[in-house]
Amino acid sequence: MSPARGPVRLSSRRVGIDVGGTKAQAVVLDPEGNVIASVQRPTPRGDQSLHALIDALIELAEEVGHEGSVGVGVPGLVTRTGVLRAAPNLDGVADFAIADLLSDRFGSAVQVGNDATCATLAEWLLGAGKGTSDMMLVTLGTGIGGGVVANGALQRGANGFAGEFGHMVVDPSGPPCPCGGRGCWERYASGSGLAMLAREAATGHRLHDVVRHAGGDAQAVRGEHVQAAAREGDPEALAVIDDFSRWVALGLANLTNALDPQLFVLGGGLASGSDLYLDPIRRWYGELLYQSHLRPVPRIEFARWGPLAGAVGAALLPELPR
Amino acid sequence: MSPARGPVRLSSRRVGIDVGGTKAQAVVLDPEGNVIASVQRPTPRGDQSLHALIDALIELAEEVGHEGSVGVGVPGLVTRTGVLRAAPNLDGVADFAIADLLSDRFGSAVQVGNDATCATLAEWLLGAGKGTSDMMLVTLGTGIGGGVVANGALQRGANGFAGEFGHMVVDPSGPPCPCGGRGCWERYASGSGLAMLAREAATGHRLHDVVRHAGGDAQAVRGEHVQAAAREGDPEALAVIDDFSRWVALGLANLTNALDPQLFVLGGGLASGSDLYLDPIRRWYGELLYQSHLRPVPRIEFARWGPLAGAVGAALLPELPR
Repeated sequence: MSPARGPVRLSSRRVGIDVGGTKAQAVVLDPEGNVIASVQRPTPRGDQSLHALIDALIELAEEVGHEGSVGVGVPGLVTRTGVLRAAPNLDGVADFAIADLLSDRFGSAVQVGNDATCATLAEWLLGAGKGTSDMMLVTLGTGIGGGVVANGALQRGANGFAGEFGHMVVDPSGPPCPCGGRGCWERYASGSGLAMLAREAATGHRLHDVVRHAGGDAQAVRGEHVQAAAREGDPEALAVIDDFSRWVALGLANLTNALDPQLFVLGGGLASGSDLYLDPIRRWYGELLYQSHLRPVPRIEFARWGPLAGAVGAALLPELPR
Repeated sequence: MSPARGPVRLSSRRVGIDVGGTKAQAVVLDPEGNVIASVQRPTPRGDQSLHALIDALIELAEEVGHEGSVGVGVPGLVTRTGVLRAAPNLDGVADFAIADLLSDRFGSAVQVGNDATCATLAEWLLGAGKGTSDMMLVTLGTGIGGGVVANGALQRGANGFAGEFGHMVVDPSGPPCPCGGRGCWERYASGSGLAMLAREAATGHRLHDVVRHAGGDAQAVRGEHVQAAAREGDPEALAVIDDFSRWVALGLANLTNALDPQLFVLGGGLASGSDLYLDPIRRWYGELLYQSHLRPVPRIEFARWGPLAGAVGAALLPELPR
């Protein structure tokens, strides 16, 4: 992670908070876009969690040094006016007017956006996508999220729900998805997808090294066990990584057909294995891209901001045109 | 087709030409966006076709009444500077600087764009998408093309290649596509796709009524035979239409996840069967859409401009910001 300096000159210091399912991350950005403070605390859970969440965010902002505007990123469908429609990873959230509640408590307008939308802003304005006019961020984590920059502007969609790439169906007869669909892209190309591909390969007593990393239980295999075995050079683990990379590339090729970006930035938890994935993803992408011989092939890079992307981008939300 | 009057006040009369694989269509738009002249002629084919094409377009513009700016829509990948990279349906085209050649001959700047991009402009500014800020046009013809309007602007992509929806893969183990891929959306949800679904269903001596419309030969079944039998109420033909509609809806749901539009406008040759498809497409779309209970469900409409959409949109190309 290199905290890139942007051409962006912000109007003042500002606070960004990224609310995750288990922890909330706050940062302060100085006017040059540098992170000058950073605090993390657990996300409240349980019955009283909505009030507790608001309280925790206020405390977090004060702890990190509240000054200037505040932006907040949350996981889930967020409307353009900052209503969180649903967030599978936050307890009890449905139609939660989080922007209004926070604005009341802070005494000034707080902008709230989807966490992957925030990460897109961070990478676009101050990270791997600096200077591009057409880029897409794809977060490969437990699921897949993302964001779209087209024609020099962040594209949030009619309702604010753009970038839900993970639920694009890539195989209608594929495995069921908790969303109710089948064969969603994130069933294959996320951390859960990598684990599923590995468990499938591990049936029939294959993938010994991967299963060893998972304590000997094929059903306990997770993405990190595949990564660990692959780093030791295990050819079966590398074959799983290759298969996984093909699924990632297939979705990127689909998105290219829709929007013709210059650049994909890959973020999320799996970015920590970028040394394993980047080459096979690029190779498969070149193979799967429509008319790749007739066009500039979009670049694929890993995100620069790592786990801070959401918070840094949340701090940038107030920069967006309303 | 209702030639809608737009809120758009054009600076002058202008000519639009839509170059298809078999015919070229020219129109003149008056400043209110009404079509006041329309001429069609065959697209030249064969060895000398590139020079012949330029000559034919000049003659066509003069015949329809050349006055004001000229815009041209062509089928294929067109760069933002009007170079036609490739056009499978035009003979001998590769890296053809059509905008420069036409501008030289006309003595003024001619704008050239992808035909589906042009149709998108026509429907957005003067048709079914008038007044929307976020819409996508999807043309269901021999293949699938389209265009994207997001945040109140036409999105052409970094190179001008946005909207190639037909080659988004929806089943990697599906039938091979002439593009080199497998299971592209247009293998299922286009005119060719409808015919394939019908031929598959017709094996095993089913679909008698559809095969009868195809002269008794199951391998000769085309989309129009399915439509004809469905209009007579044949339940097997209606089942094929339902299956086809599910594939159309699946792709629309995928595009919704990416870009969250308010509206899909369906155009292309299959729009002539809109009475058969619209209800099942809407029903399947509601079923396949991610989190449909938490969001406004985007509208799905058929295009207003019918076969004139490309030419009308080509005339509007000079209205775009460079």
